[in-house]
Amino acid sequence: MKATFLYGAGDVRVETVADPVIQQKTDAIVRVVRACVCGSDLHPFHTRKPGPVGAPMGHEMVGVVEEIGSEVSTVKRGDLVVATFTYQDNTCVFCQEGFHTSCLHGGFYNKPEVGGFQAEYARVPQADGSLVAVPGVDENSELLPSLLALSDVYLTGYHAAHMGRVGAGKTVTVIGDGAVGLSAVLASKRLGAERVILMGRHQSRTDLGREFGADEVVAERGEEGVARVRELTRGEGSHVVVEAVGHFPAYQQALGAVRVGGTISRVGVPQYSEAPIGWGSLFSRNITLTGGPAPVRAYIESALKDVLDGSIAPGRVFDRVIGIDEAAQGYSAMDSRESLKVMIAF
Amino acid sequence: MKATFLYGAGDVRVETVADPVIQQKTDAIVRVVRACVCGSDLHPFHTRKPGPVGAPMGHEMVGVVEEIGSEVSTVKRGDLVVATFTYQDNTCVFCQEGFHTSCLHGGFYNKPEVGGFQAEYARVPQADGSLVAVPGVDENSELLPSLLALSDVYLTGYHAAHMGRVGAGKTVTVIGDGAVGLSAVLASKRLGAERVILMGRHQSRTDLGREFGADEVVAERGEEGVARVRELTRGEGSHVVVEAVGHFPAYQQALGAVRVGGTISRVGVPQYSEAPIGWGSLFSRNITLTGGPAPVRAYIESALKDVLDGSIAPGRVFDRVIGIDEAAQGYSAMDSRESLKVMIAF
Repeated sequence: MKATFLYGAGDVRVETVADPVIQQKTDAIVRVVRACVCGSDLHPFHTRKPGPVGAPMGHEMVGVVEEIGSEVSTVKRGDLVVATFTYQDNTCVFCQEGFHTSCLHGGFYNKPEVGGFQAEYARVPQADGSLVAVPGVDENSELLPSLLALSDVYLTGYHAAHMGRVGAGKTVTVIGDGAVGLSAVLASKRLGAERVILMGRHQSRTDLGREFGADEVVAERGEEGVARVRELTRGEGSHVVVEAVGHFPAYQQALGAVRVGGTISRVGVPQYSEAPIGWGSLFSRNITLTGGPAPVRAYIESALKDVLDGSIAPGRVFDRVIGIDEAAQGYSAMDSRESLKVMIAF
Repeated sequence: MKATFLYGAGDVRVETVADPVIQQKTDAIVRVVRACVCGSDLHPFHTRKPGPVGAPMGHEMVGVVEEIGSEVSTVKRGDLVVATFTYQDNTCVFCQEGFHTSCLHGGFYNKPEVGGFQAEYARVPQADGSLVAVPGVDENSELLPSLLALSDVYLTGYHAAHMGRVGAGKTVTVIGDGAVGLSAVLASKRLGAERVILMGRHQSRTDLGREFGADEVVAERGEEGVARVRELTRGEGSHVVVEAVGHFPAYQQALGAVRVGGTISRVGVPQYSEAPIGWGSLFSRNITLTGGPAPVRAYIESALKDVLDGSIAPGRVFDRVIGIDEAAQGYSAMDSRESLKVMIAF
């Protein structure tokens, strides 16, 4: 099969490798129908050291089940499925508590032992917990982009809003007009936010943000951006700030925009380790800091209903479709911000 | 009047100064009946640079109103009152949202313009928001210690539990066997915690912690302490960790003891600025970090009922009573851990 590997910063290659096979009784093999490139794929795309072994890429996908292990019971050959961006058993204590990304028997893709989804086929561990069947939808459906968005991007935005306890009466500021930021706008509105302020500079993106429900767009960044958010909130700041970037300046911006007693909810994977959390930053104002990798499995069934009944169309974040052979161009298009989010069709 | 000043690290002096007077129409002058020394007073007691001007000390008190400004309406001369450790109007937008320590018209004591409470008299700004009358209790009541504990220490412990969303089914680990830590034990039980683990090494203190409801005591610190907490929680960690110390090792200990998806709630004033909050510390496990100075005014009315009806006796944290002339000895006794919490009786 063809599969995508990252050999070093900027070095994406599509190679022909052996098809994956069932290794555990709880595995499934899925034929990939749609995959995509994630904003978080751009972090190693920028920083990975060159080496002789490529990392298998991709962790979002809609596909059709080809084969299941002997202990898999919730999906069967032929089912159209959405895969969550981590695998998990959906039964352990942490899954039960809603934090599937820390499943005791789960893990992340893109390792030699569990490949990636930017490939023609994929092995999915813990298939009962990691795949969700979508009955009544086939692989030619117009819903595929929105189903694919449930693998990660929309529900990562949703997680940010959920962890920030977005709800009625709350003002939410979203930092970042990438696909996760726009998804957080959509999810915040879905959770009843009174007002959503989107911080972003790319008009085609912020226009989609407005269609997703953003009430205001702030194009300024840094101190000017903070000043503008405070101006829009009577100087008080925002109840919830979603940080959907992951770089340190976005954290600083969040500190500036957040309200007394408010919450900074991070879903951009932090590209920094230490940061201010003392008296002058978080403590004196009773700011809460929350967030992490989204337990997509916790939210996917409810979101699936919303997609199937047309309440939301999170797949609108995809603005370019490529074939697997063009994977490298897909990464470049997202890196240069030519493209918001690239879908790979098989 | 006599009042307590800190001139530098270790240099506590009681001096005779002019009595305070009404400066604003919203002020009250209160004759102090009981004051005390706070764990947070020990931070400047350790670090303040020597200088010619002393800082007025103390921010906890029960007293009797002597005089009110023309716009004060909720307390009157002769009322026995508890003062919260900050002053606030109790009406601004942040007070309404429950974060009185960030009141738009409020502030902290212990500044030249608003003195301290380790003194015979005190000027209380925003008296309507800052003083709570206790009807039917006089200045000889046996309840005075528990009323004094509502100024700060008990409700700071309560704030930690509240911000950590302590409730039924939750395991809470409290780091620190100081008076705030013990108060957090009491408050966590009050809020329905299933199990409270107290980390502390001073048996007289942890014994009181057990009486306040701690189910387990962990005397080990650092990595050993973390290992013990994890052992007590089937390796899973604690849903909520209250950090009631303020030093960096306590934050590290909290990171080790907290559960996936759990919350670190800080009420020890952080004596550090930067700390790890990236993938390996908070983010990958969806840990929430919360806390700050307690908005005592938000909780005091409910806690006052609990004290008056005997449901709680948070004043048990006081284990030594001194007169104002012995203030310096009081600081030393707390600093050397001879005393858990020192009350000053006038």
